[in-house]
Amino acid sequence: MWQAIAAGDGRDDAGGMATETAPLSPHPDRLLPADPGVRDIARRLYAGVRDLPIVSPHGHVDPRILVRDEPFADPASLLIQPDHYVTRLLHAGGVSLGDLGVGEGPLPEHRARAAWRLLCANWHLLRGTPVRYWFDSELADIFGVTERPAAANADALYDRIAAALREPTHRPRALLRRFGIDFLATTDDPADDLAAHAALAADPDVTTRVAPTFRPDRYLEPATPGWADAVKRLGAVADTDVGHYSGYVTALELRRRHFIAHGAVSADHGHADAVAEPLEPGEAARIYSAAMAGQVTAAEGTAFRRHMMLEMARMSCEDGLVMTLHPGVHRNHHPPTLARYGPDTGHDIPVAVEYTRALRPLLERYGTHPDLHLVLFTVDADVFGREIAPLAGFYPSVYAGAPWWFLDNPAAIRGFQGAVTEIAGLSRLSGFIDDTRAFCSIPARHDMSRRLDAGFLARLVAEHRLDEDEAADSLAGLVAAQPRKVFKL
Amino acid sequence: MWQAIAAGDGRDDAGGMATETAPLSPHPDRLLPADPGVRDIARRLYAGVRDLPIVSPHGHVDPRILVRDEPFADPASLLIQPDHYVTRLLHAGGVSLGDLGVGEGPLPEHRARAAWRLLCANWHLLRGTPVRYWFDSELADIFGVTERPAAANADALYDRIAAALREPTHRPRALLRRFGIDFLATTDDPADDLAAHAALAADPDVTTRVAPTFRPDRYLEPATPGWADAVKRLGAVADTDVGHYSGYVTALELRRRHFIAHGAVSADHGHADAVAEPLEPGEAARIYSAAMAGQVTAAEGTAFRRHMMLEMARMSCEDGLVMTLHPGVHRNHHPPTLARYGPDTGHDIPVAVEYTRALRPLLERYGTHPDLHLVLFTVDADVFGREIAPLAGFYPSVYAGAPWWFLDNPAAIRGFQGAVTEIAGLSRLSGFIDDTRAFCSIPARHDMSRRLDAGFLARLVAEHRLDEDEAADSLAGLVAAQPRKVFKL
Amino acid sequence: MWQAIAAGDGRDDAGGMATETAPLSPHPDRLLPADPGVRDIARRLYAGVRDLPIVSPHGHVDPRILVRDEPFADPASLLIQPDHYVTRLLHAGGVSLGDLGVGEGPLPEHRARAAWRLLCANWHLLRGTPVRYWFDSELADIFGVTERPAAANADALYDRIAAALREPTHRPRALLRRFGIDFLATTDDPADDLAAHAALAADPDVTTRVAPTFRPDRYLEPATPGWADAVKRLGAVADTDVGHYSGYVTALELRRRHFIAHGAVSADHGHADAVAEPLEPGEAARIYSAAMAGQVTAAEGTAFRRHMMLEMARMSCEDGLVMTLHPGVHRNHHPPTLARYGPDTGHDIPVAVEYTRALRPLLERYGTHPDLHLVLFTVDADVFGREIAPLAGFYPSVYAGAPWWFLDNPAAIRGFQGAVTEIAGLSRLSGFIDDTRAFCSIPARHDMSRRLDAGFLARLVAEHRLDEDEAADSLAGLVAAQPRKVFKL
Repeated sequence: MWQAIAAGDGRDDAGGMATETAPLSPHPDRLLPADPGVRDIARRLYAGVRDLPIVSPHGHVDPRILVRDEPFADPASLLIQPDHYVTRLLHAGGVSLGDLGVGEGPLPEHRARAAWRLLCANWHLLRGTPVRYWFDSELADIFGVTERPAAANADALYDRIAAALREPTHRPRALLRRFGIDFLATTDDPADDLAAHAALAADPDVTTRVAPTFRPDRYLEPATPGWADAVKRLGAVADTDVGHYSGYVTALELRRRHFIAHGAVSADHGHADAVAEPLEPGEAARIYSAAMAGQVTAAEGTAFRRHMMLEMARMSCEDGLVMTLHPGVHRNHHPPTLARYGPDTGHDIPVAVEYTRALRPLLERYGTHPDLHLVLFTVDADVFGREIAPLAGFYPSVYAGAPWWFLDNPAAIRGFQGAVTEIAGLSRLSGFIDDTRAFCSIPARHDMSRRLDAGFLARLVAEHRLDEDEAADSLAGLVAAQPRKVFKL
Repeated sequence: MWQAIAAGDGRDDAGGMATETAPLSPHPDRLLPADPGVRDIARRLYAGVRDLPIVSPHGHVDPRILVRDEPFADPASLLIQPDHYVTRLLHAGGVSLGDLGVGEGPLPEHRARAAWRLLCANWHLLRGTPVRYWFDSELADIFGVTERPAAANADALYDRIAAALREPTHRPRALLRRFGIDFLATTDDPADDLAAHAALAADPDVTTRVAPTFRPDRYLEPATPGWADAVKRLGAVADTDVGHYSGYVTALELRRRHFIAHGAVSADHGHADAVAEPLEPGEAARIYSAAMAGQVTAAEGTAFRRHMMLEMARMSCEDGLVMTLHPGVHRNHHPPTLARYGPDTGHDIPVAVEYTRALRPLLERYGTHPDLHLVLFTVDADVFGREIAPLAGFYPSVYAGAPWWFLDNPAAIRGFQGAVTEIAGLSRLSGFIDDTRAFCSIPARHDMSRRLDAGFLARLVAEHRLDEDEAADSLAGLVAAQPRKVFKL
Repeated sequence: MWQAIAAGDGRDDAGGMATETAPLSPHPDRLLPADPGVRDIARRLYAGVRDLPIVSPHGHVDPRILVRDEPFADPASLLIQPDHYVTRLLHAGGVSLGDLGVGEGPLPEHRARAAWRLLCANWHLLRGTPVRYWFDSELADIFGVTERPAAANADALYDRIAAALREPTHRPRALLRRFGIDFLATTDDPADDLAAHAALAADPDVTTRVAPTFRPDRYLEPATPGWADAVKRLGAVADTDVGHYSGYVTALELRRRHFIAHGAVSADHGHADAVAEPLEPGEAARIYSAAMAGQVTAAEGTAFRRHMMLEMARMSCEDGLVMTLHPGVHRNHHPPTLARYGPDTGHDIPVAVEYTRALRPLLERYGTHPDLHLVLFTVDADVFGREIAPLAGFYPSVYAGAPWWFLDNPAAIRGFQGAVTEIAGLSRLSGFIDDTRAFCSIPARHDMSRRLDAGFLARLVAEHRLDEDEAADSLAGLVAAQPRKVFKL
């Protein structure tokens, strides 16, 4: 097998003929509709929500950076290295992931600078993507950059950002305040002691509510390597005997309570499919025991996980954790990259996914339960209108999750707005979630969403389908009231 | 199993902050493109078709209301109770279907009024949906309402509409005339004697042609409960021995002739999939006999139905009934709601559907038959461009059915216009069908379609892809000539 | 089975009310965005690429017409008869393929004229399609036609075009020069001696590079009729013993080298699906031998072809031929039409297709190989954003092929631009390919693409997501640099 990893020359052949040094100045009307009449309405709507605090109910910021509040190390480790949105685009353009420090710990200064140079020299690779859009905003708004990145100014920009990062104004907590983040959810392992969250909650200096999210995926897949050991550790931290299935269920319930005690509002699930299918009594326990003995088939593992999705919904009805689903991603598509750089390195690829039949057993049982909130995310845009909107347009428990990951871009968001709203109404949307590992992109992402929502609603007003007071009210709902309601804040 | 049905408090948390009392006045340019240049063209095009009579070749109005011509009972039973488009949105927002009278007969005045109040108090739940758009038009145009519904004016609006309903001007036949409906198809059981249609045809007071539609679904699914009894009743009304398969086929043929004699122009089919697949000679008869004996498997039932789709196409070639297909809906997704409120209560949910392979055997046999018209509807928007348009762009028998049900909204219609027209041309579209149970929404729905078609064609003109005389001609075709041709009127 | 082929009266009922004689004059702003502000930007961008030479890396022009350089016979055989884009639309509107001369050789003048009259009389059937758009450009720009075709002017237009075709200015090579085609790829059988290409390369009068494309589909499907004989002929022309699997592989490798020696840059694959799946060692050889003995099952044939897709990728890594894939078309959907008129007669119909899982084994092996270029085309628009863009946004070898065939229209192209660019960036697009059999439509097709790309980029500029210098640079990249890079020109 040919396993060489691309080690490009850091320069794509196409593009790059544009003037290398150009001003960078995000326009006040960016992302608003181009039509002057619609834009005027959108400006007014956007102005009403531009400065509202950020509610971020799902993301991947490491809470320990907020506990420690140490300066960020350098531009590359802050803005490139951990962000697979950026590194995959550079990789596709021929840049080696190794040269970007992907999968490594802290980089020495010369390597961080070299990674930054690769980004700047390949800036054209980001054209037309939301990554470029977020980056422009971050560079201008947070670091005062006024020139478009290019090979020629890479070192100057690096120095400028590195200098800013040494200032107290750019430490994690200072940025958290400056970003106006009211609520920030992290994503956490059920065995986590949540000490970081406890420390933040106890610290009067931190006014943002930083909440953990219960992410039990690995504990629900008994056919994956390491499952039994992981479950045993979970039993240990839950102080529960997980020798039998009932103890395992109890351990999960106890850990959910631990999370809730530390402020968690949701449990997050990202499996291969959305199927929730109960097993016959006894069968779940039988598979569990087989799996603990290391004798489980892949089919049994899948059946068990699908059974557990119903159990997780039952627990949500009992303990109130919002249930979020985002199935349909083929993880680690390129094994050589996984082996060399680890997971979450840009080669998770979407597949078609089905919700209508998959969720029927779950919704039959719990779909009208007053305490269930089920937020359906997808990276298969086809299901927005075909399945998610019709489900959210009937079941009071179901909300259409905002376009996420690959779909977190203006084109897909505009498609979502039409497809879901016209079937289920504005009130069934989850509000924006940023889902980011890139701390500094949070305000840019939320701002993009507010601009696009303002543009969408402005068009409804311009087409005389909604009055402007209603549009303003709905926009405030999408930005503030809706996520608070959906995530029970 | 947790079976409680949501009994919301009738008030969604999000939204509702907008001014409660606001004017309601549908704008003359509503739904036309926002760009001033395109809108000017669209205005001219729309003006040419605005007042053309309505042709409604598929819908669910009960013909008996036209026979009896009694005043409609009250605002709720006219505008809410029977319309799952409305009730599902309220249900999703937390309103109990029971409080809306879903699945019940006539409501006492205090319950009808209470249902109306729930609608008004939850008016914000409809924002962004076509239901809201239709409702605005109905309230303003038919009932002279000038205020946006809200909790504060619910009773006043109820009284105003209730008073109007007592006037001769608002009786069913008066509205039918006022709506300018030239042709109205109902949807009927093959065993129906069609007495209502005969009465309407014989009544010189009714100038609208009210035609039945042959909807044989239940008779083609031998594995569903009650099938054998239904078939026996069909045999009885057809005066045909249905003891064997050949008699069953004859009974269907005879009932189609009965329908044709009463003005029917089409046969409508809404099964789980679009597959038409012939059985070996004898196998259909064998399954038929087994089913009559109550010994048929689900797989045999499906095979029989797929076989019968070819038979229905054969009959259409012989008797000329237009064949309409709209597969791909998972019916009654929430069994507790079905049990309590019955079918057609808002929880039919779309699934992905396939046409290319499914219809190949049918089209191999009959696809170029001069007397077959096959109109393909879908609630899976993916197939518009991928399958339906390429089929309609080759087979002279195949027409692309207008976006329907969940897709009967501006965003989906605009998607359809591009996806189908650019592959198959404007001449392969069925023209609009309203498919409604909500009698008063018929003019608003057709008007919405005319506005959107005008906007679509105006954009082709503005982009210099079509001359304006051609656009005007094509719009008249879509509104008038095309449905008359497709449905053989 | 009812097998009659539609023999329409050449006149669709709907449409056709528009003024029959009207001017034809393609507007300079055609296909640019309608919004005046965006259009201004688009005009500037378009002006920068309007006159760039055409690069056509995939198409179906017969190179022998360029070798012979004889006058085209008549308007119908040039513009109608070989172009299934045109004939399928007329057929759907009721015109008999036989009356258009489909599947026949040269037509006598009276039949060519009759076919032309059918086109003109049914001109309205093309409204809203890109075929109409291309035709308008061809008629005006190449033949100086100034009137919209109609029944009334059919003969006059025929005479005008026929006269032009007799002029030296309208011979194939003159048009090739006039069209400004720099590079033109044809599509060829691996057993072809490529004598036509050799003649063109040796002829100093031909400055366009006319390159063959290796299209091995039929040799990779051992379960199809005639396979063994075809492989034996391939062995003969490769001077290789194909008695065993290894000889067959060698023959393919040798023929690729023959093609490369004649200027080929790519190998093109159009199978039912995109699956590449290796067989166990020995299994491929076993199936090969069975197939040569005429004893292969359909499943074995599919498994062999999927195995060979990996082999073709391996060969591409070794010999550098770009690999293009365009699966997902159900060929010859209507057997009676196939029997009477042959293949490629308008009834190939798309089906849903999957890439993520299908291509994983191939991309695991070769996805980061520096010499592999894999261009993914589709007629299933769903996969643009869901699968192709995420793959092209990680793997440096993968490019998103331009919308093709049924999707080669403004609506689908606009969908593609958003769906792919916002996920993978502008640099991962293949650039336009025309894929045409209609020689005269080549400039119109490329011009359409340039206009649409200008409009797309202008909107990014108008929404302040891209600076205008970057848009201009990216547009030049899409038109010129990108296809040259992707196809290694």
